[in-house]
Amino acid sequence: MKELEERILSEGRVLPGGVLKVDGFLNHMIDTTLLHDMAVEISRLFEGCGVNKILTVEASGIALAGMAGFVMRCPMVFAKKSRTSNISADVYTARVQSFTHGNTNTLMVSKNYLSDSDKVLIIDDFLATGAALIGLRDICCQAGAEVVGAAISIEKVFQGGGDRLRSEGLRIESLARIASMTDTGLEFC
Amino acid sequence: MKELEERILSEGRVLPGGVLKVDGFLNHMIDTTLLHDMAVEISRLFEGCGVNKILTVEASGIALAGMAGFVMRCPMVFAKKSRTSNISADVYTARVQSFTHGNTNTLMVSKNYLSDSDKVLIIDDFLATGAALIGLRDICCQAGAEVVGAAISIEKVFQGGGDRLRSEGLRIESLARIASMTDTGLEFC
Repeated sequence: MKELEERILSEGRVLPGGVLKVDGFLNHMIDTTLLHDMAVEISRLFEGCGVNKILTVEASGIALAGMAGFVMRCPMVFAKKSRTSNISADVYTARVQSFTHGNTNTLMVSKNYLSDSDKVLIIDDFLATGAALIGLRDICCQAGAEVVGAAISIEKVFQGGGDRLRSEGLRIESLARIASMTDTGLEFC
Repeated sequence: MKELEERILSEGRVLPGGVLKVDGFLNHMIDTTLLHDMAVEISRLFEGCGVNKILTVEASGIALAGMAGFVMRCPMVFAKKSRTSNISADVYTARVQSFTHGNTNTLMVSKNYLSDSDKVLIIDDFLATGAALIGLRDICCQAGAEVVGAAISIEKVFQGGGDRLRSEGLRIESLARIASMTDTGLEFC
């Protein structure tokens, strides 16, 4: 998506350790017009796939997932993160390691809001090693829900998670795909 | 807002300890059509006030704040929560105690995204004791930004935070105002 790539080039900052900061328009302050444009593009990509539910994970996936849900006329569920192991019986859970924060969280989705009648589109802001996506796919699997695919704002292709999941048959559409990233700049695929 | 009140009556659940669960349409699964209707209502309430920025706090305020930012054509900033005291110098911070979770978080907003030229509308999902709202107002104050007002999904009027802040001159518009809440039901103002 040209508009997103241009914003990443002009406003993104690469930090040591392979972290891409897009705080000015996506991850802390959000350009809500861009957000809507991204949601419309996601809707276009998954048109006719029968998606009836959007699934994301708190916190930074929520804005895009909510907007995409509105554009695609379906509800959005966000997995909650918890560091406790004190999980009640009525939730699906998945353990996920965060690349950015270096910690491990348990993702939780209430069994009330995901079932075997759902055709789910997973949405997230970043795809690097794929850990969050694998966790969300696992939660859908526990619910017996069909995962139609995943829509990602920014994929760091060089970290391999996206291609590994594609090779397993998961459809992934990333709005910006970064082939390489160094302190001096980045290149899209 | 009639539509929201009706959903709370039909789908909300009161838990012991004064917690209102609205997980089925607002706080875990989100009805994105209702979300848009709420954003349009907030836009109507603050029309002509010159709002140029929406401020909320992760995680559950993000969906509504993002949608309201889109409808009102302005960017949205969400304060990040941290339990660490290891805060860098380039953020505004406020310590806030959570009524629901019973813990204390530090809210953080980068100094890059809030300034004395901003006219801010604060958005949050719940208003009970007002702790989060006070924290967000404090952050705006540190930035020299003007707080035009606050828009809240559900105000628990009986907990007093809203009226205390109104008496200090803060304009607060709550889309649903709960006067009383017991295990057997709830009443709106």
